[in-house]
Amino acid sequence: MGIIIALVFGLDIEGGFANPDLGRGLQMAFYFVVGSVLSAGAGYMGMTVAVHANVRTATAANESLSKAFNLSFRAGSVMGLSTVGIAILGMSTIYLITKDPNYVLGFSLGASMLALLAKAGGGIYTKTADIAADLVGKIEAGIPEDDPRNPAVVADNVGDNVGDVAGMGADIFDSYVASVVAAMLLGFSLPKGEEQIIYTAFPLIVCALGILASVIGMFFVKVEEGGRPGKALNTGTIVTSVLLAVFVAIVVLVGGFNMGVMWATIGGIVTGIIIGFTSDYYTNDVKHPVQYTSKVSTSGSAINIITGISYGFLSVVPSIIGIASATLISYFVAQAYGLPGVYGVGIAAVGLLSISGMIVSSDAYGPIVDNARGIAEMAGMDEEVIRKTDVLDSAGNTAKAITKGFAISAAALTVLALFAAYSELIAAATGIQLVISLRDPMVIAGAMLGTAAPPFFSALLMLSVTHNAFDMIAEIRKQWADEPGILKGEVEPDYEKCVELASQDAISALIGPGLIAVALPLAVGFVMGPEALGGFLGGSILTGIVFALFMSNAGGLWDNAKKFIESGNFGGKGSDAHKAGVVGDTVGDPFKDTAGPSINTLITVMSLVASTFAPVIGAFSIFG
Amino acid sequence: MGIIIALVFGLDIEGGFANPDLGRGLQMAFYFVVGSVLSAGAGYMGMTVAVHANVRTATAANESLSKAFNLSFRAGSVMGLSTVGIAILGMSTIYLITKDPNYVLGFSLGASMLALLAKAGGGIYTKTADIAADLVGKIEAGIPEDDPRNPAVVADNVGDNVGDVAGMGADIFDSYVASVVAAMLLGFSLPKGEEQIIYTAFPLIVCALGILASVIGMFFVKVEEGGRPGKALNTGTIVTSVLLAVFVAIVVLVGGFNMGVMWATIGGIVTGIIIGFTSDYYTNDVKHPVQYTSKVSTSGSAINIITGISYGFLSVVPSIIGIASATLISYFVAQAYGLPGVYGVGIAAVGLLSISGMIVSSDAYGPIVDNARGIAEMAGMDEEVIRKTDVLDSAGNTAKAITKGFAISAAALTVLALFAAYSELIAAATGIQLVISLRDPMVIAGAMLGTAAPPFFSALLMLSVTHNAFDMIAEIRKQWADEPGILKGEVEPDYEKCVELASQDAISALIGPGLIAVALPLAVGFVMGPEALGGFLGGSILTGIVFALFMSNAGGLWDNAKKFIESGNFGGKGSDAHKAGVVGDTVGDPFKDTAGPSINTLITVMSLVASTFAPVIGAFSIFG
Repeated sequence: MGIIIALVFGLDIEGGFANPDLGRGLQMAFYFVVGSVLSAGAGYMGMTVAVHANVRTATAANESLSKAFNLSFRAGSVMGLSTVGIAILGMSTIYLITKDPNYVLGFSLGASMLALLAKAGGGIYTKTADIAADLVGKIEAGIPEDDPRNPAVVADNVGDNVGDVAGMGADIFDSYVASVVAAMLLGFSLPKGEEQIIYTAFPLIVCALGILASVIGMFFVKVEEGGRPGKALNTGTIVTSVLLAVFVAIVVLVGGFNMGVMWATIGGIVTGIIIGFTSDYYTNDVKHPVQYTSKVSTSGSAINIITGISYGFLSVVPSIIGIASATLISYFVAQAYGLPGVYGVGIAAVGLLSISGMIVSSDAYGPIVDNARGIAEMAGMDEEVIRKTDVLDSAGNTAKAITKGFAISAAALTVLALFAAYSELIAAATGIQLVISLRDPMVIAGAMLGTAAPPFFSALLMLSVTHNAFDMIAEIRKQWADEPGILKGEVEPDYEKCVELASQDAISALIGPGLIAVALPLAVGFVMGPEALGGFLGGSILTGIVFALFMSNAGGLWDNAKKFIESGNFGGKGSDAHKAGVVGDTVGDPFKDTAGPSINTLITVMSLVASTFAPVIGAFSIFG
Repeated sequence: MGIIIALVFGLDIEGGFANPDLGRGLQMAFYFVVGSVLSAGAGYMGMTVAVHANVRTATAANESLSKAFNLSFRAGSVMGLSTVGIAILGMSTIYLITKDPNYVLGFSLGASMLALLAKAGGGIYTKTADIAADLVGKIEAGIPEDDPRNPAVVADNVGDNVGDVAGMGADIFDSYVASVVAAMLLGFSLPKGEEQIIYTAFPLIVCALGILASVIGMFFVKVEEGGRPGKALNTGTIVTSVLLAVFVAIVVLVGGFNMGVMWATIGGIVTGIIIGFTSDYYTNDVKHPVQYTSKVSTSGSAINIITGISYGFLSVVPSIIGIASATLISYFVAQAYGLPGVYGVGIAAVGLLSISGMIVSSDAYGPIVDNARGIAEMAGMDEEVIRKTDVLDSAGNTAKAITKGFAISAAALTVLALFAAYSELIAAATGIQLVISLRDPMVIAGAMLGTAAPPFFSALLMLSVTHNAFDMIAEIRKQWADEPGILKGEVEPDYEKCVELASQDAISALIGPGLIAVALPLAVGFVMGPEALGGFLGGSILTGIVFALFMSNAGGLWDNAKKFIESGNFGGKGSDAHKAGVVGDTVGDPFKDTAGPSINTLITVMSLVASTFAPVIGAFSIFG
């Protein structure tokens, strides 16, 4: 499917009506395919490493906490470093061959399209299987979770790996690439000359420094016996950030580059860390929101839901203030040193994402120790081992919250830079500076349609989850009815069938969301013109950030509120509060694992589509 | 409190640093107070009429359906016509005295501030009492709803009237006035001369024609015995709309006015009706969304919530498309005839709201028949009577859904016109045309803060509801513990205390939301400058529309899904599906009765504040 899309894109874009250039189109198509293949590769590799590390971590926990921690973090770092390594290798190679960041844009679009399909599809798949298995298994048949008599159990386990690990690998790959390409395009739009060459390549240099900083930072992630794994991960992140700032400063000072890029990078990193640590507030179980939500759960599911949604709404506020500050700081700092302000925003995004090597490592650590805990329990290992994996697991949760804040702020800065790049590409194609004024009715109408895109997209994903879950429930019931031996444990159910059903349903559910991401911006651009498309992107970015924060944080909050109750508070397991907590957690599942994290990728893909097609849209539109 | 606010406003604004003019400031303050008093009066009158009509409708239903219908509709129309009558009287008088729509702006701000306090405060009050009474009464003590042994029962009943009827009266009053003042300000910004005078006064003429059309339209609202009340209400709305279009056309053609205003009015009305009828789809129980949500409720509360939220998100899409089309049509139609496009948008909003007389009548009809049904049941009237009130009630629900679509699209057009008026006022004050470009970092940062305002506001309201409910629960438990005679029915509980508690809590809960509405736009304007405030308004309008539609429609959908189950589907009352439906309905309560409808008023108040303070903000800001 990727290849077909690639060909259509490649033939259409640069080689569009205005100036047909089939060779250029084919080259774009080629890099598009390369982007999507490498993005898929990053996801696949992550999955492979994670699956192998799970068992070994559980075994290591038998020996010592520090051994288990080091092993799982090392596995995570293999994934982190190779993700960014592949990305920078791909981008540098294309840029060195073509000397034109527009081809890197093709690569980036390929990577993001694949990430969108992987995250949205994986998210639907995993929650379909999860919900169906729970509803029929636990509630109807009264068999425990992960019971082999449940035909959906294999699909459920496959889903966990697909959604958590592969989705995340492809996702960071795509954000990383998109931030670099946005900054490169903005550098490329400078007047021809030495400066243009330097600032087009500069984002790649920052990335290289980021990898170096991450590798050194990882040496600081160590846990002695009895130490605190959470602290070790945070130390690693902070050391890496400081190192990156130092490296960038040295390169800028020694190389005689513009001081503006240095301050923009540093500003980006500092804000990213602040947002990361504050976003932890709304989902951490020692803080007020989770505790209060757990407390009100004693009055039933409805109050739990209202409270969770309210805190999800509230959680938008500090992050938005942080992102707005980061935008202003990086813009004006760059401008103060004579660079275009938007280039500063682009470089801030690159600075943030350049330490992805370290960030992905702590993030991938999470699912590994989570699964290790499950394995330890199922294998009936020692109480002490399970306690150790618990310690490891809770450190993973904090790391995950920080990563999430980091990722959303990085994505926001990236799409803002892409938005600026889109305007520059229109200017380059038409020779006219685009004016995206909120006093222009076309811009306002475009912005309205843009604001509707993220909720539309989220609704389709979530409705697919429930719809597909009902399909699978029917299949499970059918298997049990056709072969009564299954429930007695005498006959093995047809696991394969459920895996297939979940995959097919997830793929067909991707058509609508995929069209929103690709066809909607094109329709707005070609019908209403480049200004309206600018408004559309602006609107979708604004609500996209709001919905991504709301859904991810509310989901995380419900998850931890349920766990907080399960750990013995407000009546513990089996109490009324717990039942309400379970309802909240189930509502939160598609929020945080299906819709929420896909919205970031949605707005990235829409911005990339707009930039890729900017030359044709600039030349042709019906009412624009 | 209103008076204090008024004085602060009046002294500060026009008479600000730049050009102190105390007389003008005091005059503004006076009209501000008049606006808030009349707005409160409209709400109070509605409440009085409704309370009296309830009982009489129930009695009339004993005789015949048509008599009961005519009586309740007549009561609604008293309210509808007097609301718009008072509004137009106030505005015309002020304009005739001062010849300056800026004073009408003061009047409008007063009306909207009061509407915000009435709706948000009333919404918190009613849901606090409702939830507390239910949780302690039904669940803990096992006594039925509305049982006199429950100390919160009086507060609960008072709340219903405050929230439903008074809130709505004040709300329509404020939207109506805001739309007229926006169009008047835009007319006033034309170059001095005959045209300026005509188009400043024209919105008042449209309103007068709207009242005439409404009065005639009401004669068509009649039900013969055995007829369908829903059809009668819709006929009334359509006849009124057609008449208004005809009247406006006659006035424009005979008076030789610009044809652009005629087409803008007609375009506005047509779109309003289309949006009204399509918005019915998501909350009507014969349509797919409500039926599907009811069906999936058989699998529990979580699925009910996920599905309701998803359809709430989806419901945003058609309305947004409708609002965007209305904006474009009215803008370009006015421009084609040589008027400023934004004036067309303003006139479209006035056209839509000018038939409020008819709209409010059908809307006020709803709560009247709803209460009549309750009275009939409690008074133990005939089965046949209850069946008749049921028929009347279900027609009320459809009317309500249509009104809601109408109101939200009218509010959206109004705030867009206010947004344009703000730019004109800045231009008038500084002599510089405001450029609100999404490529300006200050505008982007302002827009981000603006997008966060509606979720921030909603979260505070909803958290107040649950927080205050817990306060009241404590009070109820205390009364029962202190005086065991209450639960035995021997001693009357202290109802007064609960009413007081609910009022005090609601008032103190208004501080945060009030600050968001007033202080936040001022802070953005004075710190970041008039462009950033433009971005802020743009961002808040965009997410405001999305959140208002999402929350109102999801709430309505859950309400009707519960009722659909209660009417015997999927197991009926007491089934698992019903339990899930009740959870959804409870979550939907603060969505549709507290936060959702207040967001419209929030964005109106923020736009009015920006316009009122535009001269000072234009003259002074820190970084702008």
